[in-house]
Amino acid sequence: MALKLVIIGGGSSYTPEIIEGIIQRQDTFPVNEIVLVDIEPGKHKLETIGYLGKRMIHQANANIKLSWTLNRKEALVNANFIATQIRVGGLKARAIDERIPLKHGFIGQETNGAGGIMKAFRTIPVLMEIAKDVQEICPDAWIINFTNPAGIVTEALLNYSRHEKVIGVCNIPFNTQHSTAELLNAKPEEVQIEFIGLNHFIFGKKILVDGENRTEEVFDRLINREANYTPANIMPLNWSRTFIQSTKLLPNPYHQYYFQTETVLQKDLHAYKENGTRAEVVQQLEESLFDLYQQPELNIKPKELEKRGGAFYSKVACSLMDSIYNNKNDIQTVNTHNHGTITDLPNDAVIEANCVITKGGPKPISIGKIPAPVKGMIQNMKAMEELTIQAALSGKYEDAYNAFVMNPLIQDEKKAKVLLDELLEAHKSFLPQFKL
Amino acid sequence: MALKLVIIGGGSSYTPEIIEGIIQRQDTFPVNEIVLVDIEPGKHKLETIGYLGKRMIHQANANIKLSWTLNRKEALVNANFIATQIRVGGLKARAIDERIPLKHGFIGQETNGAGGIMKAFRTIPVLMEIAKDVQEICPDAWIINFTNPAGIVTEALLNYSRHEKVIGVCNIPFNTQHSTAELLNAKPEEVQIEFIGLNHFIFGKKILVDGENRTEEVFDRLINREANYTPANIMPLNWSRTFIQSTKLLPNPYHQYYFQTETVLQKDLHAYKENGTRAEVVQQLEESLFDLYQQPELNIKPKELEKRGGAFYSKVACSLMDSIYNNKNDIQTVNTHNHGTITDLPNDAVIEANCVITKGGPKPISIGKIPAPVKGMIQNMKAMEELTIQAALSGKYEDAYNAFVMNPLIQDEKKAKVLLDELLEAHKSFLPQFKL
Amino acid sequence: MALKLVIIGGGSSYTPEIIEGIIQRQDTFPVNEIVLVDIEPGKHKLETIGYLGKRMIHQANANIKLSWTLNRKEALVNANFIATQIRVGGLKARAIDERIPLKHGFIGQETNGAGGIMKAFRTIPVLMEIAKDVQEICPDAWIINFTNPAGIVTEALLNYSRHEKVIGVCNIPFNTQHSTAELLNAKPEEVQIEFIGLNHFIFGKKILVDGENRTEEVFDRLINREANYTPANIMPLNWSRTFIQSTKLLPNPYHQYYFQTETVLQKDLHAYKENGTRAEVVQQLEESLFDLYQQPELNIKPKELEKRGGAFYSKVACSLMDSIYNNKNDIQTVNTHNHGTITDLPNDAVIEANCVITKGGPKPISIGKIPAPVKGMIQNMKAMEELTIQAALSGKYEDAYNAFVMNPLIQDEKKAKVLLDELLEAHKSFLPQFKL
Amino acid sequence: MALKLVIIGGGSSYTPEIIEGIIQRQDTFPVNEIVLVDIEPGKHKLETIGYLGKRMIHQANANIKLSWTLNRKEALVNANFIATQIRVGGLKARAIDERIPLKHGFIGQETNGAGGIMKAFRTIPVLMEIAKDVQEICPDAWIINFTNPAGIVTEALLNYSRHEKVIGVCNIPFNTQHSTAELLNAKPEEVQIEFIGLNHFIFGKKILVDGENRTEEVFDRLINREANYTPANIMPLNWSRTFIQSTKLLPNPYHQYYFQTETVLQKDLHAYKENGTRAEVVQQLEESLFDLYQQPELNIKPKELEKRGGAFYSKVACSLMDSIYNNKNDIQTVNTHNHGTITDLPNDAVIEANCVITKGGPKPISIGKIPAPVKGMIQNMKAMEELTIQAALSGKYEDAYNAFVMNPLIQDEKKAKVLLDELLEAHKSFLPQFKL
Repeated sequence: MALKLVIIGGGSSYTPEIIEGIIQRQDTFPVNEIVLVDIEPGKHKLETIGYLGKRMIHQANANIKLSWTLNRKEALVNANFIATQIRVGGLKARAIDERIPLKHGFIGQETNGAGGIMKAFRTIPVLMEIAKDVQEICPDAWIINFTNPAGIVTEALLNYSRHEKVIGVCNIPFNTQHSTAELLNAKPEEVQIEFIGLNHFIFGKKILVDGENRTEEVFDRLINREANYTPANIMPLNWSRTFIQSTKLLPNPYHQYYFQTETVLQKDLHAYKENGTRAEVVQQLEESLFDLYQQPELNIKPKELEKRGGAFYSKVACSLMDSIYNNKNDIQTVNTHNHGTITDLPNDAVIEANCVITKGGPKPISIGKIPAPVKGMIQNMKAMEELTIQAALSGKYEDAYNAFVMNPLIQDEKKAKVLLDELLEAHKSFLPQFKL
Repeated sequence: MALKLVIIGGGSSYTPEIIEGIIQRQDTFPVNEIVLVDIEPGKHKLETIGYLGKRMIHQANANIKLSWTLNRKEALVNANFIATQIRVGGLKARAIDERIPLKHGFIGQETNGAGGIMKAFRTIPVLMEIAKDVQEICPDAWIINFTNPAGIVTEALLNYSRHEKVIGVCNIPFNTQHSTAELLNAKPEEVQIEFIGLNHFIFGKKILVDGENRTEEVFDRLINREANYTPANIMPLNWSRTFIQSTKLLPNPYHQYYFQTETVLQKDLHAYKENGTRAEVVQQLEESLFDLYQQPELNIKPKELEKRGGAFYSKVACSLMDSIYNNKNDIQTVNTHNHGTITDLPNDAVIEANCVITKGGPKPISIGKIPAPVKGMIQNMKAMEELTIQAALSGKYEDAYNAFVMNPLIQDEKKAKVLLDELLEAHKSFLPQFKL
Repeated sequence: MALKLVIIGGGSSYTPEIIEGIIQRQDTFPVNEIVLVDIEPGKHKLETIGYLGKRMIHQANANIKLSWTLNRKEALVNANFIATQIRVGGLKARAIDERIPLKHGFIGQETNGAGGIMKAFRTIPVLMEIAKDVQEICPDAWIINFTNPAGIVTEALLNYSRHEKVIGVCNIPFNTQHSTAELLNAKPEEVQIEFIGLNHFIFGKKILVDGENRTEEVFDRLINREANYTPANIMPLNWSRTFIQSTKLLPNPYHQYYFQTETVLQKDLHAYKENGTRAEVVQQLEESLFDLYQQPELNIKPKELEKRGGAFYSKVACSLMDSIYNNKNDIQTVNTHNHGTITDLPNDAVIEANCVITKGGPKPISIGKIPAPVKGMIQNMKAMEELTIQAALSGKYEDAYNAFVMNPLIQDEKKAKVLLDELLEAHKSFLPQFKL
Repeated sequence: MALKLVIIGGGSSYTPEIIEGIIQRQDTFPVNEIVLVDIEPGKHKLETIGYLGKRMIHQANANIKLSWTLNRKEALVNANFIATQIRVGGLKARAIDERIPLKHGFIGQETNGAGGIMKAFRTIPVLMEIAKDVQEICPDAWIINFTNPAGIVTEALLNYSRHEKVIGVCNIPFNTQHSTAELLNAKPEEVQIEFIGLNHFIFGKKILVDGENRTEEVFDRLINREANYTPANIMPLNWSRTFIQSTKLLPNPYHQYYFQTETVLQKDLHAYKENGTRAEVVQQLEESLFDLYQQPELNIKPKELEKRGGAFYSKVACSLMDSIYNNKNDIQTVNTHNHGTITDLPNDAVIEANCVITKGGPKPISIGKIPAPVKGMIQNMKAMEELTIQAALSGKYEDAYNAFVMNPLIQDEKKAKVLLDELLEAHKSFLPQFKL
């Protein structure tokens, strides 16, 4: 039986990871065709990845046909899964998202604050087009969206495209599970975390090892880390004892932007002065990665890739596709419709939740109320996300302004306009919906 | 490690089934102590079951200590699981629940209509006492409630007792899964049904075999059964093609009371004239079962037990306890708090839903909206259940009347009173909360 | 300034009442143009009413231009208010709605049960067309809908037509206020009743006289009426003491269909044998009314009209239009969107609620939860109404069946089909949306 | 008939305004007894106000008995209305609420941010005691709460005291109505504003003059004010055109704290350097007011009082009591339970909403959804208020910290602790519930 995966944004430096994942899962998830799709400006990178992918498959002696193309519609024919990992405007656009806010004294970051909103504005229309193609060409296929801001993008697709088989994934739940396991000297697969919230804004409510509640222990160890504990590399490092003891929740690294705003801003400003934007740092990393990828003797995913922040994304995606394909009914944390799972959020909101993964897609496990300490913040973030989607689709200046001014990292009615105007101008070639 | 099960209502004729279940699961769910508890009037039956249980354990060479007692509080010390399967007032009370409504032209049935409400009135106060004892003596233990009306009783305990670890079980989801499997020539474990609703009022929304949606096929086969299909013994037999085609839902046998009321009433009246109440028929069955149980050579659960309507209850309960104990994260259909699972019902309503079964209890899988065709009926039933619980706890005549008059099987403002008065009088020794 | 009222179904026997109302309110609500609209088969009645109207206006020396036409679109030009009081299929269709259910042992009634559903099926598509015309021709005009089933029709228009200025009215709240005033020897304008529910399914929760809570007194007098009280002519007569004492709610006459079903059915069957359907009785009333209307010396609304059941409808409608026109901010009970007013019903449900009447339309006063005793029944009715609207718009047999089988007056899965089939056939000329 | 008003915090400089209001309304709202209550440290001011009040009543020739006492319980006997206008800790505590946040770079303000939370911590326990007394001594009396933060305090009383007759009032809706009237050259009584939100966080959604929607005109005039318009003295001055055009909402002055945070902070820091805290400025104002009040020839409310920011509070309160007493059914904007009025907030939240004022209290007019641009912010504020109430009642450090860190004006997980620690220490004599 044919099983076909299409990777949109196939020229991404992360693609070898997903190819590796497919190769490793041949026995249970027998993908036998992979098509990498990209756009003209990414053609060279696409080819590089394509040839590397072929060498990897050959080396693994896997029965997978790999090809690449700039023709998305052709690629989609008979697809079963579509992974979307695009970056509209490339790292140059990211650099703008980072630099302009910093210039005005705001955090510049690609998925939060002004930068995250702008990324959504650039990305959502393109993914709406992709979803339209999928709906027409391969309506039974699942879109597995990694593209950031993943939660916002997934909500846009689920609520405004006609394609219903869309799942958003992020590596934060996976990383939190793994670093918590490390903290507890447990195996990752034994650790289950009851998450609550939104993509990049989830908290861990309960940490279980083989079903035993060990939340207190995790909190104690995090709180007392100063003395004698070396935390896992991804674990949040800087949370005050009081924050964890009072909220009784496990934060994730992105919460630093909201609850340690001034500290992060100063750090980012310093880093910017030293090294330029994170986008520019990444640009160099990317270039050396592609140098590596072109080496004809390379036929596995190189270790160097793990240094990129998005590591394990592909692992998460492969694991998800495997569970769908095999109706595994295991539990994974993905972005899907709320539908009552969290009673304090709208039913059509997309949340990041623990789901039973079935052939029919993710079925979220009921959560109930948001813990009181973070209820308002999560509701606020979701409302801001809705404003962002609204603006990305309407292209109206007022809608864009509303998203900006209501973002907790901006929230200044005059500076919101200054920021927005400058960002709209800088990105205008990628924002056709805004009549600029 | 000690693992102790207490069976309240241990003198029930069903107890051998649960003992058998425990014996069969020794490897994975190593119960090593069972205490059967009953009340003075059931002392003789308790002993009979006790001795049979001992013979069964001996025959199976199992490492289980079995004892019996009339002292509930003592029995509860160090309990891990408590199965509750009591019948306040015994089959005599059931006969009254059946006979009086029939006399007035209403369906008399032990879990629906006037009879079901009266059973709740008798049962809830007793189970509240049990839950209080459990909370004081073994607060970490799970109460697995089989006592009917199971959904109503479970809601009363979860919302009004201080003990939170309460789960209600019923054999209907299990039986539906098995008979659907038979219909599709599939193995029961391959069949998953997306249920929606309340205990004795659940519908099957989707039938999946290994994750493949085969709902249409099930409907077609049910609809066309007249011609060439011999349906499974438990499967609903009499639904019209139109009902299934229009609601697009799989009903369960209890729905006959509501959607085939007149037919069922006539059938019941006829059966009553022929054989007396179902309670009386069951009384005879019970007596012959206990004759059998007393035979010293009997050392297994006798086949004859399966003829009793509640077969597989114990299977369901053992399977549930096993999954809790082992944190299996498998999916079972049990009665638990709604908490947003069904968005059209109150958060604190108890629903019968597919749940992931963990060491921390059942975690329901989000459902969202009730399908339009049955939304109103399910909301109506739930509201009636709330009135029933209210009255069972308050002992107020008005509350009892409200439950009666709003029950879809009664709903006549004058006859409701006649029925209620007669039933309250007939049951008064078991209704101390009503000052009669 | 011009103020124009269009009466659709202007040939109705009720029209003189509304003309009278307009004449009486000349000072505060200065309508200076009335256009009566009807369809070809009603042409003769339309003329009769037209000439009577002219005589009434002349007699009152009022400055109102009255005309009549079969051309609805022309009539709507520059309209400010549109009153809709149509009867698709006329009294003949009503006779069918009454006769066929009775034949099968069900209540046959024009706004409840099978008859009410069929009336909705015939009426909704026509009113959707009217709303479409209004939206195109006079988009600022208010539609004041009297057409039954008024709540269902209003919900259909508010949720599925593009015209948002739609209000449904009924005389039950008005009549209840007046008969309660009579009961308390108070003036109607001093009496305020806190209503909860749906059109034809509202209950009075609290009765206030000049703000003083006199609910208990009303209940006491209703309960003790047998002895020494002659109730008002519209007040519900037959409620048992227990029903009122337990629900602590004031029912309305339509509740008899649901809570005294068997009694009402027998009474209706008896009346049918004696006099034929109510439609036929009304037909004769109508004929003698029109004989009267044709008398050239008649120049006021004749007293005989008050014998028709719908009396005071027009009073309610005039009072509503007056308050809108004058932004009175007084409180009237009308049918409008829920929007959270009742927290146990969907936001987009139409409810019958106490509203502040402003130039911008009715603003409902928050109610909160439905009283527990009737929560389920009201939710059930609303869900059934949604199914009815669904079917009226889709014309699908399954949708129609769902509405029938879930109606509390039908609810038999097999007889629902028999009833539906016979009614669809009998009415087919007025049900083009059903492909029969 | 006796009509008795008790003013708790009767020694406040605002009391002459409320006495004036009572005198002016003698005809319609015939209060014939006023008792001023205060505590020992306010004894001198209480007497001053008492004697002034007596002179005012004498001058007006009004039939009102005025007295004062330190014995609250005695004062409450037979009370009909209780106005609560206390300041726990006095202006000294306010100075602390202002100074400490400013010191750490946060806005210091008595009803918002850290200061507002601390005021709630000091105030809620005292008002809970007052409500307890009222419930015991005069359970039918209405508490009209002016004490800030009025919305939070009212929610605490409505949800956690047993007294249900509590209404919170604020002068912002009144002032907005009046300044909007000025802007439109309309009379205040012709202007109605559809408000949405919470105390100190309401927005105007629609501005109507005699029912005509003039929202756009108000926005245009506000937006174009720079050129040719001198706005009313209370109208928000500094909103950018874009903010109003995009949100399509009328903000109130308190929104400056949230959407112009940096500007306001700088202004406040500057003012602080010049004149000390606002509390200290007010302290001087108060002293000269009391000098004035002591002048034996003063027998009316002096004009100077209007300079205090809380002007018109008493007008609002008198108008409210008058409408309750007379069951006026007019519309006023007060703080009361949500109960579905705003569908995006919890049912038991206290909101500031347009209400019909009846003898039975305020009945809010349904609003439905919060406008998208401010939904998240309003939800966030409400959640923060809930945390504040939780902490005020529990006296737990963690709860207090949660309120601080989730307040949009604080939100820094480390500085939240610094601020909280310093404020708890500074206020400890007024925070017995915190075991410090």
